[in-house]
Amino acid sequence: MSISYKNLTATRAFATLRQLEPPPHLSTLLTPERIRSCSIPMGGGLTYNYAAKRFDSRVLHVLQQLADEQQVIEKYRALLDGEIMNTGEGRMVLHHLLRGQLGKDILHQGKNLREFYRKEQEHIYTFAQSVHQGKIRGSTGKPFTQIVQIGIGGSDLGPRALYLALKNLKEVQGQLKMRAFFLSNVDPDEASEILSQVDPETTLFILVSKSGTTQETLTNEAFILRKLKGLKNGGMVPKKHIVAVTSETSPLAKSSEYLEAFFIDDFIGGRYSSTSAVGGVVLSLAFGRETFEDLLEGAHEADVRATESNILQNPALLDALLGVYERNVLGYPCTAILPYSQALFRFPAHLQQLDMESNGKRVNRFGEPIDYPTGPIVFGEPGTNGQHSFYQLLHQGTDIVPLQFIGFLRSQREEDIEYQGSTSQQKLKANLAAQITAFAKGKSSTDPNREFPGNRPSSLIYGEQLTARALGALLAHYENKVMFQGFLWNINSYDQEGVQLGKTLASAALAGNREDPVLSAYSEILMISS
Amino acid sequence: MSISYKNLTATRAFATLRQLEPPPHLSTLLTPERIRSCSIPMGGGLTYNYAAKRFDSRVLHVLQQLADEQQVIEKYRALLDGEIMNTGEGRMVLHHLLRGQLGKDILHQGKNLREFYRKEQEHIYTFAQSVHQGKIRGSTGKPFTQIVQIGIGGSDLGPRALYLALKNLKEVQGQLKMRAFFLSNVDPDEASEILSQVDPETTLFILVSKSGTTQETLTNEAFILRKLKGLKNGGMVPKKHIVAVTSETSPLAKSSEYLEAFFIDDFIGGRYSSTSAVGGVVLSLAFGRETFEDLLEGAHEADVRATESNILQNPALLDALLGVYERNVLGYPCTAILPYSQALFRFPAHLQQLDMESNGKRVNRFGEPIDYPTGPIVFGEPGTNGQHSFYQLLHQGTDIVPLQFIGFLRSQREEDIEYQGSTSQQKLKANLAAQITAFAKGKSSTDPNREFPGNRPSSLIYGEQLTARALGALLAHYENKVMFQGFLWNINSYDQEGVQLGKTLASAALAGNREDPVLSAYSEILMISS
Repeated sequence: MSISYKNLTATRAFATLRQLEPPPHLSTLLTPERIRSCSIPMGGGLTYNYAAKRFDSRVLHVLQQLADEQQVIEKYRALLDGEIMNTGEGRMVLHHLLRGQLGKDILHQGKNLREFYRKEQEHIYTFAQSVHQGKIRGSTGKPFTQIVQIGIGGSDLGPRALYLALKNLKEVQGQLKMRAFFLSNVDPDEASEILSQVDPETTLFILVSKSGTTQETLTNEAFILRKLKGLKNGGMVPKKHIVAVTSETSPLAKSSEYLEAFFIDDFIGGRYSSTSAVGGVVLSLAFGRETFEDLLEGAHEADVRATESNILQNPALLDALLGVYERNVLGYPCTAILPYSQALFRFPAHLQQLDMESNGKRVNRFGEPIDYPTGPIVFGEPGTNGQHSFYQLLHQGTDIVPLQFIGFLRSQREEDIEYQGSTSQQKLKANLAAQITAFAKGKSSTDPNREFPGNRPSSLIYGEQLTARALGALLAHYENKVMFQGFLWNINSYDQEGVQLGKTLASAALAGNREDPVLSAYSEILMISS
Repeated sequence: MSISYKNLTATRAFATLRQLEPPPHLSTLLTPERIRSCSIPMGGGLTYNYAAKRFDSRVLHVLQQLADEQQVIEKYRALLDGEIMNTGEGRMVLHHLLRGQLGKDILHQGKNLREFYRKEQEHIYTFAQSVHQGKIRGSTGKPFTQIVQIGIGGSDLGPRALYLALKNLKEVQGQLKMRAFFLSNVDPDEASEILSQVDPETTLFILVSKSGTTQETLTNEAFILRKLKGLKNGGMVPKKHIVAVTSETSPLAKSSEYLEAFFIDDFIGGRYSSTSAVGGVVLSLAFGRETFEDLLEGAHEADVRATESNILQNPALLDALLGVYERNVLGYPCTAILPYSQALFRFPAHLQQLDMESNGKRVNRFGEPIDYPTGPIVFGEPGTNGQHSFYQLLHQGTDIVPLQFIGFLRSQREEDIEYQGSTSQQKLKANLAAQITAFAKGKSSTDPNREFPGNRPSSLIYGEQLTARALGALLAHYENKVMFQGFLWNINSYDQEGVQLGKTLASAALAGNREDPVLSAYSEILMISS
């Protein structure tokens, strides 16, 4: 069957969807039976429960039609088979291949890319093992005990969120091998602060830039290098403290200034690179090979689930479709990520990039302007913290924000107390159950200020415990959801032309370019040149 | 002049505002002259530059009319004078009084409240000094070297954001007296992790709960206490390691279980409590009296600016009015906070609570439903990190998000390098100037995928350096902005009825209450009772 690409608004299914009466209020829809039945396994031991989303059987029926009409599974299979899905940049999109073969063999310039990615994984594991065994040491002979990852955007947010998500679990399991720091911002205070916290003699720096030209990252490398060079009298050899993660064609790859180089390629987008060497080096060093392999396995399981064409068996696809319904029919412009797990406190920041950079687009994949809303604004904080912060607006504000809850049956450190008849983990879960219920059902009151309108849709992803495998599935679920939404909206989720103009103007400002009077005026008040 | 409260849509000015033609595209409006002239001093050495906001002289004229018609300055003065502005709860709103007298003397139950707040401040300073001098020590005789603040919501987000904002500056100034940790979430992993990082013998815990009944905070106190009691054999006396910040009527105030108690009262709302003992104890312990006094001074300066009735001399009011124009006329539901300062990386989370919990309301101050949008969704991350994340959507997404930039001429640690002809701080500022310019002007292109529509409004708050005084002014600016928006929307910004339903349902879930079948079904899948 040949694949055709058309705009959301050009589909028959979307026209039907728009004409449907909205479903009844969630206080009517949401029953115990619905809660028990609306669950889909996600891989990694996770379950996607969509009972509290706003839909009825008519909506689901049309969403299935929409998925079929937009040929989203065929498009996913084409992506897996190496079709050029990043149309603007003329690139394949191969992050799925990092965690297992789901499509054809992909040959590129005579190279089997699955083999290439596997080889790099083995390279990472061998290197990490040598570091852990003390075979590879700092230049003054001391073992490496901590890591500083230098990278920004996709080289920072995903790996950082994953590291933080597993740190506690691995610590109590005795598998926290090295602590990691992350240096991203060009703000000199960040580099200065991190350097004040680590002993360079025992620190391994990971420089991460696919292109090898990222301004912030190269600047921070220079910052670190100056420090390391200043310690030369103590026998410090900077190149023995830095490894690079980059593409084979980047200037960094040719440099002899690094202890080791690990490679990715143009087919791994920055925000999709957590399961490549970009996340692999730091996570394998921090936690060991097995943990990273577990993460990949969980991601692969989610990738397999995403090949299902029945939307009721494909959690990423259903999540995507319900999101499009909320965005384009119900008209909700935002979505909140609310993990009831402190370990996931930076995971919303990763999803913010993943979603908003992928689908914050106003042209379709052919570069033609489109006239319907695309990617939503994504934000979030962990519960129960958020309850004492922005939930007021979510419950009683004038706008509706669809919610994505995440929770786990058990904590990671499994140190807990019973207080007033329940453990902290029970309290955490009780709050989660309470919030979903409150948002869906609301509560009437004779006092309008104490009335909760309810009908606030949410979904719940839950699992036994936040392990590496569960985390991999969670990560891939969202990557695949965003992919499916890109297909539904008919946009290219894999470029980011919107970041270019700022880069150009920043360079002009630094060069003291006076051509743009507005830029010059702002440069003056910020005293850039002085 | 008597004050009358009316809905935004009942004002003549708003009707006029709605009928105005929208201003021309920002690429036309934004000139160097406008950039130089649209600046207002904010106090604390900060400047509010609103040149890149979408307005012209007609809009400003009507916004002044709106401010006058809604009597916002008169309402602010009434608030300062102790009128019951938290109508639902029947309380005064007195956080301004924490940092200086701007209205009448406030007498309550025979007590002059300014004197009461001053007395508590002196109490804090004396206590902090005794700790710093080693006169007050842990129960095993060791000096206190670190602090753990136990609190959630307003007892966490504001104080934490302020501590992180000043930590680097104070460290390089040699004034970082104690390091602070913050424990907020009921997730047991957070308490467990923090306890694994601090030595209880040298740790002073600050328990913060105005009511003394906050579930998460009391649970975390119990978590800590169990640990401390387990160390009794080593001579540990738990009560000598915990101070309380609470109201005089709370159960905590009557407890003899604390080394010391510091008081606030019902007129200081949680999200407005950073300049009370809630922020004062931890910040005075961490940085000393002078730093906290500087913070209060900066806040007071901003409070004074906010009394100006000319909107062009009142940055908080103008910011509020332009926000209402964006929300209620231009129809933008979100706003992003983008500090080009890594030290402010948790400041957006504080503003998220401040704004969304204050103004995420659907009834007016009389408790009557209203039919126009109120508080926006607030999110943000520091630049330049955000540029490599969600800025794609901000530049080229289908929705417009008004932006609030914050930047400083100098870094805090003042350790910097020159790389490729510029320092990191210069690069940071150049990116800031570039982004404002890019968002406002956009860029045309024959390739629609490389076209930037521009006309994305932003404001810029900037100052010499992020000091305690500047931070105080920044904090108060947003508090006052939110207050003015509450007046414009005719809502009560000082209650939070929307948090109640979740609390009730969480208690029911913990009690195993089966009355609500939906709650029961979610409780089952999350296995709360097992």
